[in-house]
Amino acid sequence: MELPVVRINEVSKYEGQDVELRGWLYNKRSSGKLHFLQVRDGSGIIQAVMFKGDVSPELFEQADHLGQETSVKVRGTVRADKRSPLGFELGVKDLEVVHEAREYPITPKEHGVAYLMEHRHLWLRSNRQNVIIRVRHTIEKAIRDYFDQNGFTLVDAPVFTPSACEGTSTLFEVPYFDLGKAYLTQSGQLYMEAAAMAFGKVYCFGPTFRAEKSKTRRHLTEFWMVEPEVAYMTLDEDMDLAEDFICFIVQRVLEKHEKELVEVLERDVSKLKSVQKPFPRITYDEAIERLQKAGHDAKWGDDFGGDEETVLANQFDRPVIVHRYPAELKAFYFKKDSNNPKLALGMDVLAPEGYGEIIGGGQREESQETLESAIQAHNLPMEAFNWYMDLRKYGSVPHAGFGLGVERTVAWLCGLHHVRETIPFARMMERITP
Amino acid sequence: MELPVVRINEVSKYEGQDVELRGWLYNKRSSGKLHFLQVRDGSGIIQAVMFKGDVSPELFEQADHLGQETSVKVRGTVRADKRSPLGFELGVKDLEVVHEAREYPITPKEHGVAYLMEHRHLWLRSNRQNVIIRVRHTIEKAIRDYFDQNGFTLVDAPVFTPSACEGTSTLFEVPYFDLGKAYLTQSGQLYMEAAAMAFGKVYCFGPTFRAEKSKTRRHLTEFWMVEPEVAYMTLDEDMDLAEDFICFIVQRVLEKHEKELVEVLERDVSKLKSVQKPFPRITYDEAIERLQKAGHDAKWGDDFGGDEETVLANQFDRPVIVHRYPAELKAFYFKKDSNNPKLALGMDVLAPEGYGEIIGGGQREESQETLESAIQAHNLPMEAFNWYMDLRKYGSVPHAGFGLGVERTVAWLCGLHHVRETIPFARMMERITP
Repeated sequence: MELPVVRINEVSKYEGQDVELRGWLYNKRSSGKLHFLQVRDGSGIIQAVMFKGDVSPELFEQADHLGQETSVKVRGTVRADKRSPLGFELGVKDLEVVHEAREYPITPKEHGVAYLMEHRHLWLRSNRQNVIIRVRHTIEKAIRDYFDQNGFTLVDAPVFTPSACEGTSTLFEVPYFDLGKAYLTQSGQLYMEAAAMAFGKVYCFGPTFRAEKSKTRRHLTEFWMVEPEVAYMTLDEDMDLAEDFICFIVQRVLEKHEKELVEVLERDVSKLKSVQKPFPRITYDEAIERLQKAGHDAKWGDDFGGDEETVLANQFDRPVIVHRYPAELKAFYFKKDSNNPKLALGMDVLAPEGYGEIIGGGQREESQETLESAIQAHNLPMEAFNWYMDLRKYGSVPHAGFGLGVERTVAWLCGLHHVRETIPFARMMERITP
Repeated sequence: MELPVVRINEVSKYEGQDVELRGWLYNKRSSGKLHFLQVRDGSGIIQAVMFKGDVSPELFEQADHLGQETSVKVRGTVRADKRSPLGFELGVKDLEVVHEAREYPITPKEHGVAYLMEHRHLWLRSNRQNVIIRVRHTIEKAIRDYFDQNGFTLVDAPVFTPSACEGTSTLFEVPYFDLGKAYLTQSGQLYMEAAAMAFGKVYCFGPTFRAEKSKTRRHLTEFWMVEPEVAYMTLDEDMDLAEDFICFIVQRVLEKHEKELVEVLERDVSKLKSVQKPFPRITYDEAIERLQKAGHDAKWGDDFGGDEETVLANQFDRPVIVHRYPAELKAFYFKKDSNNPKLALGMDVLAPEGYGEIIGGGQREESQETLESAIQAHNLPMEAFNWYMDLRKYGSVPHAGFGLGVERTVAWLCGLHHVRETIPFARMMERITP
């Protein structure tokens, strides 16, 4: 008789029934007449209990010697089991070895991070990494759902870009046929500005690249970023959007993963539950004051690094928005504050608990004349921006947007120290393998 | 009094009410005491009717001279209008010019394709391009929804890859710090195979790159591809998955866009409605016979190009699946047919109406020994595949998957001749701008 082939995260629908599970041996222990086989199939882990009296002596003996990660088909009866994290176990009636694994390189003992990163293709099979990547999936889906539900059009930005908008020092260069060179995108923003004029509300979401020579726990050379852009939107509305968006993501992650965050990642989820609207909003000026009061030697005009961000963020129980930075610190396309043209209408969202900036954005300059002056002041090649200036020539409107980095968001929500675990195959200065 | 600010695709909820629309002037005509202003805001186009008696003489005069793409805020009353495609029009009470556009470069007259591609940042504002990109969005969302609803985990594949799996001739090369060179991914498949062993059912979906020196209507250097991979899946189940997946996408597009496909893109949707399961499945051998019967001089061992694909696809009213190609035509990782080792367990899905291959995939070789021989036979560097071989050492299982190209799917469903219109900012041999 053909048994239903079932995934472990769906066994609850088959209580009392015989099923076939297809997976890998994650761990095992034995006690006399019983083998307790931890079987994983990617959707979950189940304890398969093999009683000596239920199977042939040969099979019982074989099961005692199976190596970790041996692939198996296990057949048996789904039984409720209140003690197990899953709530169910499998009473084994039969087991078929698909392929025997010997000396699997990642054992339950501790391995160094370099070793694990070198074995990333296998490390992904561990429960902790499985949970992190599934949380990442939930975050990426929440991001798309949020914008899809709110009338945004997905407009994929190109990866190949023709010229360096803000200096070439952190750009990856690619020889490109007879056209010379192309650069790998650092941001789709300029394209999203064009798209916002065509579709009103848009977002792009894809990999972006930064050839930065920094080996910190917050940097990858290849990372995913989502960038919404909205025509007729102002800075205040941009902050409203960022706030609402972050709350939506955090809520979704808690709904789907609270148990795993606590039990597998040991995340203090009370810190995530306090992520509710409204977020505190402070000006850059107030941020400087707060830093100085906290004994930090920051002065007006300084940019914020990880240290400053942490000091500021630690003063709040939820993300804090810092807005109106000195224009000199910001890119040419920021609109200036009409009350004080030394200030740019930019804003950053800093995550709590030392995770730093997860969102950067603001309102863009919509005047052709002002923008041309800014391009000249920044010594940028005007001809590279001809198409971008067209957006100010033909029906220019106020507009704003932001970018959110996926990996930092995953690190924050999962409570991870380093971003290298937040992406399936991390790329860093010193790593492009496996 | 503050009026509700409404997007055009939502005006039906405001019938009889006064609202404010924010957009751009798409087109206009006048007849004595009436201006008919076509206003677009990215979500749709509405006719705003300005009656001379309803506004100041100055405004009525000004409205007569507004240039195409002038940005405007229009206030007035939403009225049902059965004759309009939208079903509603706006009775104008007030109009505010945000920014006047003069001599917009894309007029309703015909422009050449090169000119339009050079002005892609503006061309996206035209109704036809708007519809295409929104259909693309629907397709991309349908792709994700399908896999998300069916228990797949999203596992983003890296763009930077360390070595050339199948020759470097069509790879983009990037200088990469002290590590020498990285290559831009052509496919996430090998990574998805690793991920399938960790998560059971996975997919990746992102941009991929091909430095092919071909200027055809089916080629881009940067294109989006989705690649599902499933542990314990065989070729037959792979074809079932591909078939079910395509039907889901086509159905979703018809549900959301049938009217626009017909009215704006002039698509014959009857051709899409016949895309129902089951798809015909023919072996490569049968395909050769059919080509020969059709007077084509194909012989066993030939690979199929656009011509052959079109001849075959035209024999059916829905996509056709061709399976079991000569192993020599296929990459090293294909599993051989146990009934005839000259055949690879690969399959392609050919779209009807001359759109050619939209899916390529198959079952992968799971034996370490056989795979090592294949790597040697293909003269590939074994050390580059050490991590990939690990998947065959530790709990190897049968597995299969495929890749679907987004742009060809958009071209097919929208009925477009060339893929350059299927992506917001196309990248081709001769184009990386704007």
